[in-house]
Amino acid sequence: MREPGEAFQPYGQPSRFESKIVRSITSAPGTTGTGVARTPLQALEGTITPSGLHFERSHDGIPDIDPDVHQLVIHGMVKRALSFTVESLSRYPMVSRVAFVECAGNGGALYQKTPAQLPLQGLHGLVSCAEWTGVPLAVLLDEAGIDPATKWVLAEGADAASMSRSVPLAKAMDDAVVALYQNGERIRPSNGYPMRLLLPGFEGNMNVKWLRRLKLVAAPLMTKDETSKYTITLPDGKSLQFVFAIEPKSVITRPSPGYKLDGAGIYEISGLAWSGYGKVAKVDVSADGGESWAPAALQEPVLPKALTRFRLPWRWDGGPAMLQSRVTDDTGYVQPSREELLARRGARTFYHYNGFTSWRVAPSGRLTHAYA
Amino acid sequence: MREPGEAFQPYGQPSRFESKIVRSITSAPGTTGTGVARTPLQALEGTITPSGLHFERSHDGIPDIDPDVHQLVIHGMVKRALSFTVESLSRYPMVSRVAFVECAGNGGALYQKTPAQLPLQGLHGLVSCAEWTGVPLAVLLDEAGIDPATKWVLAEGADAASMSRSVPLAKAMDDAVVALYQNGERIRPSNGYPMRLLLPGFEGNMNVKWLRRLKLVAAPLMTKDETSKYTITLPDGKSLQFVFAIEPKSVITRPSPGYKLDGAGIYEISGLAWSGYGKVAKVDVSADGGESWAPAALQEPVLPKALTRFRLPWRWDGGPAMLQSRVTDDTGYVQPSREELLARRGARTFYHYNGFTSWRVAPSGRLTHAYA
Repeated sequence: MREPGEAFQPYGQPSRFESKIVRSITSAPGTTGTGVARTPLQALEGTITPSGLHFERSHDGIPDIDPDVHQLVIHGMVKRALSFTVESLSRYPMVSRVAFVECAGNGGALYQKTPAQLPLQGLHGLVSCAEWTGVPLAVLLDEAGIDPATKWVLAEGADAASMSRSVPLAKAMDDAVVALYQNGERIRPSNGYPMRLLLPGFEGNMNVKWLRRLKLVAAPLMTKDETSKYTITLPDGKSLQFVFAIEPKSVITRPSPGYKLDGAGIYEISGLAWSGYGKVAKVDVSADGGESWAPAALQEPVLPKALTRFRLPWRWDGGPAMLQSRVTDDTGYVQPSREELLARRGARTFYHYNGFTSWRVAPSGRLTHAYA
Repeated sequence: MREPGEAFQPYGQPSRFESKIVRSITSAPGTTGTGVARTPLQALEGTITPSGLHFERSHDGIPDIDPDVHQLVIHGMVKRALSFTVESLSRYPMVSRVAFVECAGNGGALYQKTPAQLPLQGLHGLVSCAEWTGVPLAVLLDEAGIDPATKWVLAEGADAASMSRSVPLAKAMDDAVVALYQNGERIRPSNGYPMRLLLPGFEGNMNVKWLRRLKLVAAPLMTKDETSKYTITLPDGKSLQFVFAIEPKSVITRPSPGYKLDGAGIYEISGLAWSGYGKVAKVDVSADGGESWAPAALQEPVLPKALTRFRLPWRWDGGPAMLQSRVTDDTGYVQPSREELLARRGARTFYHYNGFTSWRVAPSGRLTHAYA
């Protein structure tokens, strides 16, 4: 470089050479804001998802909320109803934690009979991880004064869909947070600006964005978002409702479909594992479709209910191979193979897929999605 | 909200209501890229700095580097000179770590005789923290084969200033990383795209951006950036050279100048502490100019050579107050007061200020920068 470079920018952006590393968008016909924007996991490393690439599931677009006007109301079975502005919340004690959020529908394509030929982003791009900061919900509920008969909390968003879910009081009082910050700065509009409910480890839909109301109640309210959607239909036609926690899951991010290995030799396998129950305890990796497994290194610090990066060197002999990963969490739960999951749950749902994901490596070095 | 919200975006941005939360830019007369862009620490929470707000110190602008063309060369006292592309580095084992980077000149204004009336951003905005991912430098140097007489490594950037520094081999072999990713995505241009040297805990200038060359040598090369700059001039006119590690430091970020307390009552004091030597062990906070101290809570996980968030509830009685913080790290180093630091070092330098920062609270609720 013999010429001076570019000027300083008030708010920086990625390199122009990275312009293809973006979220992929699928929206319902006739809408621009009902659908999903998926994180390009195949292009990312580490565990933090940059906020511009955090996945998004929205039910009626991103509301444009003035933080000086927005209020959060706590009412229902409380001694005193309370309302909070962004400003008033800033005087309360805060906590930060790194947590993943995963859409209950992430990986739903793997319930299909034949393996969808999509990049990782299309298959599993509805999970992301950030450092969230906000006020513990327990602090606010304590101030409101909880009626002892309360068992649930309705959480409602300020979007046009009025997205709402019933949350067990026990979770609300455990590790729930009214989050104001995402990766250090104010939450992005697509992730709930100016505040969202963070329920670490629970399916994304319950982490209500644009949070405007919390109503303490004795029984779940059976909202549209927990009855007509976000229930798991079993083979016999019955549905599981209120499956909150994201079951342990893992996926190899690099290499993955779209990559081409450049001949036999040593490669690093890199991937992500997570559990809505707690910490990742172990990740095993197979290159022969599950015949043999080797333990991967886990990147420290391993945090509960957060994405955990695993890595393993792999010597490719140039022949056909089948890459898989299998996580075990600190409750002892072992990620099931796809067959095991489908044997238990059938394939009438597209929620909560946490079976294996398998990448077939051809002698050409190309990777494709396969059912091993 | 009765109307559908905004559409999905491929790469998300902050809310339009946060448009004032940007880096503040100071560039040398006649240039647009020689100077600094400071992080708005007073508006952030948690420990991760979003990449768009990560501080920047550049000596001749931001080079526009094509990652398919860029190469890193390792040469000098090695068995075999090597060169690496971004692509070839991606086959090597990687590590992720959260690390702060701080400019050696951060806080330099506090050497002045009277307290500069600037917001926190202007006083201490040259420190940021990110999750960095890349290849351990030791792996690459081992492959090159290190001549036993090697003691130093020259690191040079591809910017028009050819920024270069001599790095002790011991550090290069310890925890140095050739970083390719910042907070999950490729490093931002302003932070060294497509690769930078990360020397956790060492002054920012040594974490050479746009890294293009590492030369193994027997003695430091006395480059312009380690002789005419980045040395600490003492009262007797002698200069300390090669002061690498950032000494333990802390600062209260909220409230800070620009905030106005809304009457007596309880507030949360929130701040950041860090040490280039290791982990933060303790942070004490005073509201009476150092007469009495109370231990703050440290946000877990406390990571070595990373920003650590501390918080403490404080009941303001509505009278005059003087807020200060004091960090102790796990080596036992206790952050000095400004007087203690200046007694040792004088005020002929503007580098490595790590004394106290004091905020005077007036009965009106306004905060100003003060020397306590």
